[in-house]
Amino acid sequence: MKNGSPSLNALDPDTFAGESRAVIDFLAGYYRDVDKYPVQSEAEPGSLRRLLPDTAPEHGEPVDGILEDVGQHILPGLTHFQSPNFFAYYPANASTAGFAGEMLCAGLNVAPFTWAASPLATELECVMLDWMCKLMCLPDRFLFSGGGGGGGGGVLHGSTCEAVICTLAAARDRALSKLTHEGILKLVVYASDQSHTTFQKGARIVGIPPSNFRIIPTSASSSYGLTAESVRHAVEADLASGLVPLYLCATVGTTGVGAVDPVGELGEVARRYGMWLHVDAAYAGSALICPEFQGYIHGAELADSVSMNPHKWFLTNMDCCCLWVASPAQLTSALSITSEYLTDVSCQETVDVVDYKDWQIALGRRFRAIKLWVVLRRYGAAGLRAHIRRHVEMAKWFEQAVKADERFEVVAPRRFSLVCFRLRPRPRYEGDHAVDALNRKLLNAVNASGRAFMVHTVVDNKFVIRLAIGATMTQMRHVRNAFHLIQEKATQILPP
Amino acid sequence: MKNGSPSLNALDPDTFAGESRAVIDFLAGYYRDVDKYPVQSEAEPGSLRRLLPDTAPEHGEPVDGILEDVGQHILPGLTHFQSPNFFAYYPANASTAGFAGEMLCAGLNVAPFTWAASPLATELECVMLDWMCKLMCLPDRFLFSGGGGGGGGGVLHGSTCEAVICTLAAARDRALSKLTHEGILKLVVYASDQSHTTFQKGARIVGIPPSNFRIIPTSASSSYGLTAESVRHAVEADLASGLVPLYLCATVGTTGVGAVDPVGELGEVARRYGMWLHVDAAYAGSALICPEFQGYIHGAELADSVSMNPHKWFLTNMDCCCLWVASPAQLTSALSITSEYLTDVSCQETVDVVDYKDWQIALGRRFRAIKLWVVLRRYGAAGLRAHIRRHVEMAKWFEQAVKADERFEVVAPRRFSLVCFRLRPRPRYEGDHAVDALNRKLLNAVNASGRAFMVHTVVDNKFVIRLAIGATMTQMRHVRNAFHLIQEKATQILPP
Repeated sequence: MKNGSPSLNALDPDTFAGESRAVIDFLAGYYRDVDKYPVQSEAEPGSLRRLLPDTAPEHGEPVDGILEDVGQHILPGLTHFQSPNFFAYYPANASTAGFAGEMLCAGLNVAPFTWAASPLATELECVMLDWMCKLMCLPDRFLFSGGGGGGGGGVLHGSTCEAVICTLAAARDRALSKLTHEGILKLVVYASDQSHTTFQKGARIVGIPPSNFRIIPTSASSSYGLTAESVRHAVEADLASGLVPLYLCATVGTTGVGAVDPVGELGEVARRYGMWLHVDAAYAGSALICPEFQGYIHGAELADSVSMNPHKWFLTNMDCCCLWVASPAQLTSALSITSEYLTDVSCQETVDVVDYKDWQIALGRRFRAIKLWVVLRRYGAAGLRAHIRRHVEMAKWFEQAVKADERFEVVAPRRFSLVCFRLRPRPRYEGDHAVDALNRKLLNAVNASGRAFMVHTVVDNKFVIRLAIGATMTQMRHVRNAFHLIQEKATQILPP
Repeated sequence: MKNGSPSLNALDPDTFAGESRAVIDFLAGYYRDVDKYPVQSEAEPGSLRRLLPDTAPEHGEPVDGILEDVGQHILPGLTHFQSPNFFAYYPANASTAGFAGEMLCAGLNVAPFTWAASPLATELECVMLDWMCKLMCLPDRFLFSGGGGGGGGGVLHGSTCEAVICTLAAARDRALSKLTHEGILKLVVYASDQSHTTFQKGARIVGIPPSNFRIIPTSASSSYGLTAESVRHAVEADLASGLVPLYLCATVGTTGVGAVDPVGELGEVARRYGMWLHVDAAYAGSALICPEFQGYIHGAELADSVSMNPHKWFLTNMDCCCLWVASPAQLTSALSITSEYLTDVSCQETVDVVDYKDWQIALGRRFRAIKLWVVLRRYGAAGLRAHIRRHVEMAKWFEQAVKADERFEVVAPRRFSLVCFRLRPRPRYEGDHAVDALNRKLLNAVNASGRAFMVHTVVDNKFVIRLAIGATMTQMRHVRNAFHLIQEKATQILPP
């Protein structure tokens, strides 16, 4: 062999530029037409498998044919999170800047697992977490010392569940250091019936016995927020049984109804019983850049960790989750394991740098910080606040519209851009079950139209429809259309 | 409010296309010039923080200035994984097709956590895992039934560590279903001293007591592969102490020296003692698409799970890890937790679909399958085999060159594209410590030149230099240059 086998030349700059432009044009066309697809796909299981060959192709082919197939076979089978008529789950909003950041991340393709593995990628991440912390008015204790803080710090994960597992492991190991490993059987995790199931899954993953996960009920009287009283009650009962309170989750903007737990009050309970308090602001964290929402995070100085997902409502393409901790040492002592090939041969002495591999589950990681940097610089804090407020104002309009139609009721107070509503019970319906069935029928009819997509939740045993506003391209007219669609379907299905 | 606050119009198709093209041109320029940067950055801690403002900008700015800053301030501070002179860790190889796939993933920005949340994104993932399984000649038991297999299946994770945690949790819960939760204190995980530390970290995360993690020594006599005998010995000792063998990790292509554990023999031990066998082929899995390497995976029909990372050596930009399991039900029973808003309102009956949220840690997930699809179609199996073989041939050349220079020795057998070598001991040096110091000095000198970047490992208490060939743009001349650089620095530092 003189020069090796024939090379694919898979990063030839001219080919790279040409083929990448074809993809860009394809995506620009997608954004132009995305509102023409049914928002939720009606694809049948097996429909794509039947079209594709059984094995990978033996020979390569040009990119054009691949893009044609994406357009013809994949796009109609997706549920279009970028459609302006997408009102389901919580948003996953893409943007030109978020996409530019993803391109830089994917194109540079560095893996900053240690400082040495890409120094300024790590440093940019530290600075971005400080910027976000200040923008959201989180307490200074979550800032890096270099950022003017008190020795805390932040890291970018891919998802809240990863962040939760890391904090659960840190809390667990902090507790076990005083208990011996057998203590793991006694540790108890607390969340509300509105907390994300991620906490339950995370607790199971880190080895907390499933019987030691407490789901504390909430009710309309506290607007579905967790009360300090109910937590204290649950904790006292566990203490009486010889168990050890470990971890309490407070949510700002729950997934189901957008409820807000009283962070400060829960922080006091957590502190009193020596529990780790995590504040999950996955969705609503984005709104905390607006002063009018910052009251919801008051008391966060009593939290051990806070997380939020820019990939939900911050114009940041997936994936991106910010996690801040007050004590990085507690995180790294649970997650740090080193290998010879990861020690930097050039610096034998310890220098004060961040090795992000010890702040997360995986060793490998992407350069997500550059994405957040591009988003923050391209739109600025003012632009991002306007983005949030625009969605909140549309949600207010929808809330009022629902209230003005006597057939409907708003089921939980609207805090941000999520409205939870349903067809209200009327004397002629026989009980809750019938009301639920009607609402289920309504939601099905709305989604089946292809003109909007929403999902439901169940709160107080009621089937509730969620309209979550947050897609990048959603304009007032889309919200109006969604409301008229709901009215139209309601008229069709309601008994005369 | 009539039309909401002013919109950023953050997905306007024309702006999107224009700004994205600017990023493409920037990246094409980067690939043109990447070999001009020192491969490993020499950036000092704090150097970027001093340049950036303390807080996020209040107002947005055009993309051009941002790209200029990336070029001026970020690029010189990165360690360039895409440099043709990058020989460190294992590769993280980008490609035009992998990048196109990342763009489609980021641009469509769907989150296929359940079938209903984007049906054909899930289905494409199932088919891609079947394609990869067949391409690597893995046993049929890892194929989905629909793909001609026996009820197994695969999923894309972001990293091996995530895959490992999911399989550890599945193995743990399978064992605990017979033991009650207290049994967690008795479970034992086995790996070799060459296994990735990910297993140790994963075992800690899922609550296995750290004292129950067995690191079994390997030696030159088995080419640093784990022997069935040594595992049996360790297991018997644990059984005698009343412990419960849980999980055994076999590696095909270890990180340190590229060693291969005997999968079939370890599979028999695992089966005999009721342990879960995981085969980690993170790096070398890519080579298994070439028939000449498939012998290394013989016996995998005795494994419970197998993983490999296309983002290492398969022209797939980060991140992408394939995990196959023989029994998806064991995985999902450990990881499935459901919420009302994730149940599909339209199908109340159970249909046989995959909900990938139950195959992974997080709820949210990216549409990584489209990336793998584009790579496989754009280059074809033949192109990808040529890509692998080109790197292996270059490694063979380097291995021969090192052997031909009597100052060096190859320390472990080369299996794939990794060569482990060092300056050999000679009578005049006093003991191992002096040889290690010289090799450390050599590696430092090579890396400090900026003309190549390698890392070391320690095996049999020897400091060993690793040359891992796998960057997309690496050509024979870069390997030759690296060898001449090593010779030149050796001449400078060796005592006369």
